[in-house]
Amino acid sequence: MSAPIDFYFDFSSPYGFFASERIDALAARHGRTVNWRPMLLGPVFKLAGTAPLTSVPLKGEYSRRDLARTARLHAIEGFRLPTRFPVATQAPARIVTWLKATQPQLVVPVCHAVYRAYFLADRDIADADTAATIAGEAGADRAAARAAMDDPQVKDALRREVDGAIARGVFGSPFVIVDDEPFWGFDHFEQIDRWLATGGF
Amino acid sequence: MSAPIDFYFDFSSPYGFFASERIDALAARHGRTVNWRPMLLGPVFKLAGTAPLTSVPLKGEYSRRDLARTARLHAIEGFRLPTRFPVATQAPARIVTWLKATQPQLVVPVCHAVYRAYFLADRDIADADTAATIAGEAGADRAAARAAMDDPQVKDALRREVDGAIARGVFGSPFVIVDDEPFWGFDHFEQIDRWLATGGF
Repeated sequence: MSAPIDFYFDFSSPYGFFASERIDALAARHGRTVNWRPMLLGPVFKLAGTAPLTSVPLKGEYSRRDLARTARLHAIEGFRLPTRFPVATQAPARIVTWLKATQPQLVVPVCHAVYRAYFLADRDIADADTAATIAGEAGADRAAARAAMDDPQVKDALRREVDGAIARGVFGSPFVIVDDEPFWGFDHFEQIDRWLATGGF
Repeated sequence: MSAPIDFYFDFSSPYGFFASERIDALAARHGRTVNWRPMLLGPVFKLAGTAPLTSVPLKGEYSRRDLARTARLHAIEGFRLPTRFPVATQAPARIVTWLKATQPQLVVPVCHAVYRAYFLADRDIADADTAATIAGEAGADRAAARAAMDDPQVKDALRREVDGAIARGVFGSPFVIVDDEPFWGFDHFEQIDRWLATGGF
């Protein structure tokens, strides 16, 4: 059994959302599983001196157009940029960090629920109570999820996860690592497919 | 007859080089021609507050790896990052600007010659004399090419071209515009192919 594919993403990343809708099927085609790893792009942007795509002059306008077009091309129905965008995603990332340690079977359903709540239903996933409610709708204990967000151990675990991601060279979302080979961007999913099929090129 | 596809690029851009090796065939498959438009990314980076890919922390190391991998995937033999990289590309861009006005049939051969000299043969295309020599090898008059680089009319024409590119939203290389639809990046060539085949999606 090969190791899982590492799927790093920020819940505020629209290309990360597209990736989340396709990554499990991509991996499964090649007999692989996926380790879903929510992280925070804020510290990365600070380190790399970069900024959220849509806030960069020229690039911002283009990216809005490319997002809509890419959603159409991949038949991801109902996508639109949320009213508040981008947002800090500590709240849902901490919930998932807590679930990974306690109820790993809920990680994927909760990740889907958070992403879809944000990019399809325009809900404010940055809000702690809203994030807990969404997790609850996906099968988690709502009150425990809300409490986990303020748990120092959970906060520390997420901080370590972000540091570890940066140490591995993760600088964007989605960022996929297949057996130490890094792939940045939803655009690279065809390269990942080829890589998994051939064992490298 | 449809309008040509606009292909904007900087001669210092490795993904632009990959694109230059594929764009004519891509367009021809759909009965289209290509308008080769060298521009300068320097003013764009200044405007957008961005930087050359390989100089950004974290992103730099990844991009070196992705470039080598992408070259292998697309069977672009002999690619490597030049010793001096990135460089200012006024010299070859001015030569091509001059050729567009005087001998358009030489534009594509000279563009290929410049790109290949830089990314396959590690020649210093930023140097005026070297750039003129390369243009000469591809069929242009070497002395006239060298003189064109200092011609105020040519300089002005290139400046206008860069301003015009920015006004159309061009912020990177390669940047392709198909009937007003913008596509950024060599990664988007499959989207362009689909767009040309279907007339939009």
